[in-house]
Amino acid sequence: MAIAFLKAHGTENDFVVLPDPDGDLDLTDSRVRALCDRRRGLGADGVLRVVRTRHVPDAPAGLDGDTWFMDYRNADGSRAEMCGNGVRVFARYLHDAALVPSAPGEVVEIPIATRGGMRPATVNADGTVTVNMGPVRVTGRSETTVGDARYPGLGIDVGNPHLACVVEGVADLDLTRQPGFDPEVFPRGVNLEFVEPVAPDEIRMRVHERGVGETRSCGTGTVAAAAAYLDARDHATGSVTVHIPGGTVQVTITPTTSTLTGPAVFVAQGTLTDDWWITHA
Amino acid sequence: MAIAFLKAHGTENDFVVLPDPDGDLDLTDSRVRALCDRRRGLGADGVLRVVRTRHVPDAPAGLDGDTWFMDYRNADGSRAEMCGNGVRVFARYLHDAALVPSAPGEVVEIPIATRGGMRPATVNADGTVTVNMGPVRVTGRSETTVGDARYPGLGIDVGNPHLACVVEGVADLDLTRQPGFDPEVFPRGVNLEFVEPVAPDEIRMRVHERGVGETRSCGTGTVAAAAAYLDARDHATGSVTVHIPGGTVQVTITPTTSTLTGPAVFVAQGTLTDDWWITHA
Repeated sequence: MAIAFLKAHGTENDFVVLPDPDGDLDLTDSRVRALCDRRRGLGADGVLRVVRTRHVPDAPAGLDGDTWFMDYRNADGSRAEMCGNGVRVFARYLHDAALVPSAPGEVVEIPIATRGGMRPATVNADGTVTVNMGPVRVTGRSETTVGDARYPGLGIDVGNPHLACVVEGVADLDLTRQPGFDPEVFPRGVNLEFVEPVAPDEIRMRVHERGVGETRSCGTGTVAAAAAYLDARDHATGSVTVHIPGGTVQVTITPTTSTLTGPAVFVAQGTLTDDWWITHA
Repeated sequence: MAIAFLKAHGTENDFVVLPDPDGDLDLTDSRVRALCDRRRGLGADGVLRVVRTRHVPDAPAGLDGDTWFMDYRNADGSRAEMCGNGVRVFARYLHDAALVPSAPGEVVEIPIATRGGMRPATVNADGTVTVNMGPVRVTGRSETTVGDARYPGLGIDVGNPHLACVVEGVADLDLTRQPGFDPEVFPRGVNLEFVEPVAPDEIRMRVHERGVGETRSCGTGTVAAAAAYLDARDHATGSVTVHIPGGTVQVTITPTTSTLTGPAVFVAQGTLTDDWWITHA
């Protein structure tokens, strides 16, 4: 069998990549959970299966069958629409494995299909990857509470709901417990960003992800944080460097869309043992 | 370069194995920490470097230079003397990679050198591994407290200090905080085992490891737990099945020594990317 894998991360949001061009892999929920288990398996936040769209029964209609599809699975085995850090890893894999056309010295846009639609990405000369994150929509103002402190913030939709708050002393916040938010404004929960400017167009951010807790990185969260920083300066567009616990990314917001540029780091490649794959079916 | 690795676990105590027969690997503390980092690296409780004893400058004196040495590194980069679950993985690797003589159908004892001295191990026909854990020494009686509850227990030395307590309702104990113990009896701290009999010569155990917290497995802890169970039945020797959160092992205590038999599971093998290895020097 010799199931091939790669282990990679984008700003410490980590993934097991499974090349499966022809959709042959029997990737059960049980195997996804075992792969992501940090002691029984390889360990990861999620699995990125690399498969042509024609082999994905639940792919959105109207996508070209030849396009590479990012079949993203959460660590619990469930299917997800998109993952901003995962797309960088996915694009870099397609590029490095020469699965997409490239011209030396030329930046080529790589079409990537996801359950959330097309997410074109480009691999830059320095190895970073730029992903089109789609339009940013300001949804209104609200506030969050951390312990006794209340912070006003900007509600922002980047495909998922965010509340980004400009604060002082972001390093000292206790985010081990769920911060408070207004359930009438965010009935399905909300991702909370705490943003502190450190220089012009440069911010430090921590994030509490809906249903997860504090994480080292959240792709859509960095876009929301940049939007809130710009809004506080009465700008609707601009380019912002965002430092997160897992690294540094660059966010650009234009009148019609947003882009996220950041690293994609490959740790290792190899094969799973047959025994292990069979045992965890 | 193509640095080879394997990922494996023994009752969910997990390891990165680095074959390095001639001691060529520049395994800095920084690289150990990065390898064990569960997001930046492969993720593991520790690294097992497989090297011939002659290439280990800090190996104990008097060991044969040809013997395979288990160079165990903790996740923080520090060197450790021994690891009961790691020795099983190490022995199974030597056996499967044909680095030690073997005869089909015959159980061969594999000599393994560690900083704690020789730890011979045998790979059984079912793939489990039996490790000689050395003599068990009862050091006296003491007690531990969990919340408001007090539990009497047996002090046991298996190369490191343990206090093993037979309790009821082991599944319900709150071990998220450090249980109390008598610092006059255990001045350097103590590993605490909570043991519940579930059938004749069969126990369930949870363990709070000194300086770590609750873990899914502790090799010496299972030996101490078996000794405490036998002692409560006025036996000094015997064979006990021990269920731990990470799996099941078999402990045998004789008048002169003890053995631990358990699984060694190989998840994957592969190579680290050159970029990653260079970056984390």
